[in-house]
Amino acid sequence: MKSVTDIAKSAREAYLELAASGSSKKNKFLESLERILGERTEEILKANRSDLEKAKKEGLSAPMLERLSLSPDRIAKIAEGVRQVRELPDPVGEIMEETERPNGLKIEKTRTPIGVVGIIYESRPNVTVDCAILCVKSGNACILRGGHEAFESNSALAKCLREALCEAKLPEDCVQILPSSDRALMGEMLKLDKYIDCIIPRGGEKLIRYVVENSTVPVLKHYKGVCSVYVDKDADEKLSEIISVDSKCQRPSVCNAAENLLIHKYAAKNLLPKIGKMLSERGVELRASSRAKAVLIPAGIPCSDASEEDFSTEYTDLIISIEVVDSIDEAIKFINKYGSGHSDCIITSDTVSAEKFLNGVDSAAVYWNASTRFTDGFEFGLGAEIGISTDKLHARGPMGLRELCSYKYKIRGNGQTRGKPVL
Amino acid sequence: MKSVTDIAKSAREAYLELAASGSSKKNKFLESLERILGERTEEILKANRSDLEKAKKEGLSAPMLERLSLSPDRIAKIAEGVRQVRELPDPVGEIMEETERPNGLKIEKTRTPIGVVGIIYESRPNVTVDCAILCVKSGNACILRGGHEAFESNSALAKCLREALCEAKLPEDCVQILPSSDRALMGEMLKLDKYIDCIIPRGGEKLIRYVVENSTVPVLKHYKGVCSVYVDKDADEKLSEIISVDSKCQRPSVCNAAENLLIHKYAAKNLLPKIGKMLSERGVELRASSRAKAVLIPAGIPCSDASEEDFSTEYTDLIISIEVVDSIDEAIKFINKYGSGHSDCIITSDTVSAEKFLNGVDSAAVYWNASTRFTDGFEFGLGAEIGISTDKLHARGPMGLRELCSYKYKIRGNGQTRGKPVL
Repeated sequence: MKSVTDIAKSAREAYLELAASGSSKKNKFLESLERILGERTEEILKANRSDLEKAKKEGLSAPMLERLSLSPDRIAKIAEGVRQVRELPDPVGEIMEETERPNGLKIEKTRTPIGVVGIIYESRPNVTVDCAILCVKSGNACILRGGHEAFESNSALAKCLREALCEAKLPEDCVQILPSSDRALMGEMLKLDKYIDCIIPRGGEKLIRYVVENSTVPVLKHYKGVCSVYVDKDADEKLSEIISVDSKCQRPSVCNAAENLLIHKYAAKNLLPKIGKMLSERGVELRASSRAKAVLIPAGIPCSDASEEDFSTEYTDLIISIEVVDSIDEAIKFINKYGSGHSDCIITSDTVSAEKFLNGVDSAAVYWNASTRFTDGFEFGLGAEIGISTDKLHARGPMGLRELCSYKYKIRGNGQTRGKPVL
Repeated sequence: MKSVTDIAKSAREAYLELAASGSSKKNKFLESLERILGERTEEILKANRSDLEKAKKEGLSAPMLERLSLSPDRIAKIAEGVRQVRELPDPVGEIMEETERPNGLKIEKTRTPIGVVGIIYESRPNVTVDCAILCVKSGNACILRGGHEAFESNSALAKCLREALCEAKLPEDCVQILPSSDRALMGEMLKLDKYIDCIIPRGGEKLIRYVVENSTVPVLKHYKGVCSVYVDKDADEKLSEIISVDSKCQRPSVCNAAENLLIHKYAAKNLLPKIGKMLSERGVELRASSRAKAVLIPAGIPCSDASEEDFSTEYTDLIISIEVVDSIDEAIKFINKYGSGHSDCIITSDTVSAEKFLNGVDSAAVYWNASTRFTDGFEFGLGAEIGISTDKLHARGPMGLRELCSYKYKIRGNGQTRGKPVL
């Protein structure tokens, strides 16, 4: 069995070869992969069944089993994703800036791959392919460490990935999976900053916290999405209703769904009962502050008490916390205190308030009169995404192929020296 | 005494206020600071004398004392740096990209401050002012932790910084120094990822390694500069000589000075003795591989043996390691193996070789026919720099005001929802 250090060393070598390869080999890899996934569907499903049987014996919960399970349809969707990534432009080699200095040096800032990327994730086997193809398309080698429940499925998928690399005459070691999901191996990987340039953990807050606390490799992460919708005093009634409902209900399990509803005191009396009723009718549990309750209860809208903790909780469920605020400044302060810097929205007809909110809320994506649910690589036009960063370094918000890149300076001269030339 | 957590919390609050302030307040701060540094020169020097006396008693080495010591001239230079930063454009609010999506959402990617930046550095007190002004100009609050030798000097400088903030009606807590240079306080700071967005350590490799191993806050770092000059088979003789000498000798103590000289076997016989002689005449110790010795010794150029370790050593001194290679591919491989990804140069008259090198060497700055000594914020036209990153995430190479920024997406809509609108 290859050691984690050997895996990382060979990933670095594979990366250097991959980085020197052009788009056509990378696209050939994706073309082959799409075909191979079709040919191997039965084999992948067999491995997946073995994971599922084991997981059932271990008593995995129904939602976890659902995440783990593959079907011919899911595999076809994975293959369709491969095709889509193939069609995206290659970010490597893009010239980001060009300058000529007074001394004649021509400085070009060019997009390059990051290098070796470690991806740590939980039980969904489709992540194996999604992450690997984005990494390879952007010129990065990757080391994948999925959840132990999905080990057989991931191994079967990795086999397809490596075969497709071979067909494209790219080094197989551009994609490697850790030989077991033993936590000690992951721990080793997190210390290999000599060979690995970046770790991307995908999963629950506990996993991400573990990675942050143990990694000496830089980490790009997404802790949680505590998103707020703020209804300003000049908010349009219809927009307030449709955006609040969409932000909360359209897909409550995802990170860009709203968890908090804030409303200006002048708008509360008229709008809060209406919005509350619409949410309530859609099965949303309302957790209200005392000020919010004072409006909702007389209007006959069922609600329970919100604790302070509620306002910084990511429910990923049909629950919303509600607060009434005295001013837009209070709303901005509230969001910067309780939110997670992910996606927040103001509903207002007042341009000055809108710009104040867009500037003052310290989040990756700040919306004016649109649902928080749009924070997503596809919706932003990035083509695909490997995740959504709540960090402020490197990438903030949706991370697509460009965010999987670094850059270098290429400097072309004709004998420039910093001191006086010696000849 | 304020706890480290309280310092970080108040830095976050100060940052939010600073981020909402425009350029004019930030420039007023810099204007006041320039004046205050002049007025307080005697006070600062007094504090510095106290540090120096203590340091002498503790037996600090002469170069360390030299780094620690301030003079009226040095303070004037610090003030001149303040003026220069004031004249630079404000990076905050720059629109980096703008798109309109098919659904009418207008997405604007705008430069924002990072937030709260922790700077950890060693004995030079000028770093206190240099880092603080770059942070404030880019809208970041900073927490400074200098070396214990410079504590009195740093405190006197911080007093000037905070007074200037007051004059500009900006929160004083935009600039804070840790109340002592006790290592435990620094350790605490490194865990405060809830309030601090980024740590920038400046100093020796040991300090940086300590920060990387102990920080849960993302770190932007610069490990070391092991830079190489590669003389290709088609290199121009004069360029090979002037660039090799400049890269090694112009200022050997800095990170972008060359530590390795590689030369193609076909060029070695003619050029290596000439370059070796020029370096040797300038007091450079040549450490040569057996292949390099086989050329240097018959030509009467004094040299010693290079060990493998030499090729990945940052000498910051008049020493160079020399190797002869069979091909440009071998040179690229050598640099990617032994170098530190900082600055490397090819000297060649062949465009194809040059482009191969520029693409293949995995370093922040790759030069064709120019000295490695140009990797520097001022030389790149960034106006100033807070350091040079050898990381690949966020910033690579010189970090100026823009590299002290993050970004956010501002999204302006008119009622867009992800699902079908409910009304």
